[in-house]
Amino acid sequence: MPHHNPVLDHALRTPAFIKLAGKRVVLASNSPRRREILRVVGLEPEVVPSTFAENLSQRDFESPYEYPVATATHKAVEVYERLVKEDPEDPPDLVIAADTVVLSSVTMPVPGTSASLINEPIPEILEKPSSQADNLRMLLDLNGQRCEVVTGITIVYPVLAAPGYAIQSIDERSFVYFADSPVHLLEAYADCREGIDRAGGFAVQGRGGLLISRVEGDYNNVVGFPVTSFFHWLEELIEEDEDFLE
Amino acid sequence: MPHHNPVLDHALRTPAFIKLAGKRVVLASNSPRRREILRVVGLEPEVVPSTFAENLSQRDFESPYEYPVATATHKAVEVYERLVKEDPEDPPDLVIAADTVVLSSVTMPVPGTSASLINEPIPEILEKPSSQADNLRMLLDLNGQRCEVVTGITIVYPVLAAPGYAIQSIDERSFVYFADSPVHLLEAYADCREGIDRAGGFAVQGRGGLLISRVEGDYNNVVGFPVTSFFHWLEELIEEDEDFLE
Repeated sequence: MPHHNPVLDHALRTPAFIKLAGKRVVLASNSPRRREILRVVGLEPEVVPSTFAENLSQRDFESPYEYPVATATHKAVEVYERLVKEDPEDPPDLVIAADTVVLSSVTMPVPGTSASLINEPIPEILEKPSSQADNLRMLLDLNGQRCEVVTGITIVYPVLAAPGYAIQSIDERSFVYFADSPVHLLEAYADCREGIDRAGGFAVQGRGGLLISRVEGDYNNVVGFPVTSFFHWLEELIEEDEDFLE
Repeated sequence: MPHHNPVLDHALRTPAFIKLAGKRVVLASNSPRRREILRVVGLEPEVVPSTFAENLSQRDFESPYEYPVATATHKAVEVYERLVKEDPEDPPDLVIAADTVVLSSVTMPVPGTSASLINEPIPEILEKPSSQADNLRMLLDLNGQRCEVVTGITIVYPVLAAPGYAIQSIDERSFVYFADSPVHLLEAYADCREGIDRAGGFAVQGRGGLLISRVEGDYNNVVGFPVTSFFHWLEELIEEDEDFLE
């Protein structure tokens, strides 16, 4: 069955883009930012947002870095299974899902640990602010400090062995350093409400960029999709597994 | 005389944006990327590209970091003086110019220096590639390495004392780390010709992003305008000098 070609004319002529041409590639996310990052490099997947509730409990994970990978995996598998069920004759060739969390560093003394570990920061996942006042409180905490942005990416694709699909994941981590901003700048940002719907309470690619002095890592990861690691990973999978995307 | 208001509705309500409202603000650059970075945070200056030839000799500068600052200063002064001459009754309130260069790190043994200095890298300014083959050569040099992006920003604004204007400058430096890409990816990028017209031979905000694993610094600086430092600087100037932008 012919599909919308996900590979745009301006895509680089690399093995990954050549293999993806004409395939059914699905992005399990409705985020306009993720779609734009992919579009810039020449990939325009079909968009099928996941219905997964994104309600995993943070307490079920030993490390907060596992959380976005687990959420991305639930999203990708839900969309893959749903599309196969809807039309078993036309399964997706590749489903891509991503989840991004913002981790704060808080210093928590842990009883019974050695001195060198007492000041080891234990990252915790920052939620979306519930109000402008809550956003201001979060920005005051972050001001002059850094946080860490972690994106989990999971791909699901058909294989012959049961259950008929394979799941693979990566995660990408970037540090975001906040400038030492005057309080009136933080107040003005909280007032503009851009940060209300954002994990961590800021949008690096918007007016929130004015609060951020530097990023250490992939900037696109902070926006929501680490596109460089994603494509280098696809190129490796193609090299290692001749059946991948065939 | 009423001007196009350079401050957009979505700008943060900070002292700098409040002072800039209704003022004649001029960007001495036709770069769509610089205009877009400023537009995102709410500033839309009048655009008057400089006619300065950008032909300063690198050999006239002790340090390559001085070069973009000098070019930005020539651009800003040329535009300011031209606009004042064209209409002495309506001088600009603020002219903003920027120049971005890409510095490579090359290891050059310096005779007579101590051992610890022998491997000190001496940065040199990377030019725009002259052809696809030249672009590929530059990308092979950068692959798995880092380069440094430096933007000089100069502002010119009216003061009572001769010559009737003041000049101030900052520079911003960011490191760009290239992934260890397979040669076929570098070849595909050179083939797409996106890098031909770019200093250093790549565009971080385009398909060239696929070659770059991380940035250490302000991402917008690598694109061409360090907007965070620029606005924090304006806020400081307002605080220090009550006549600034009055």
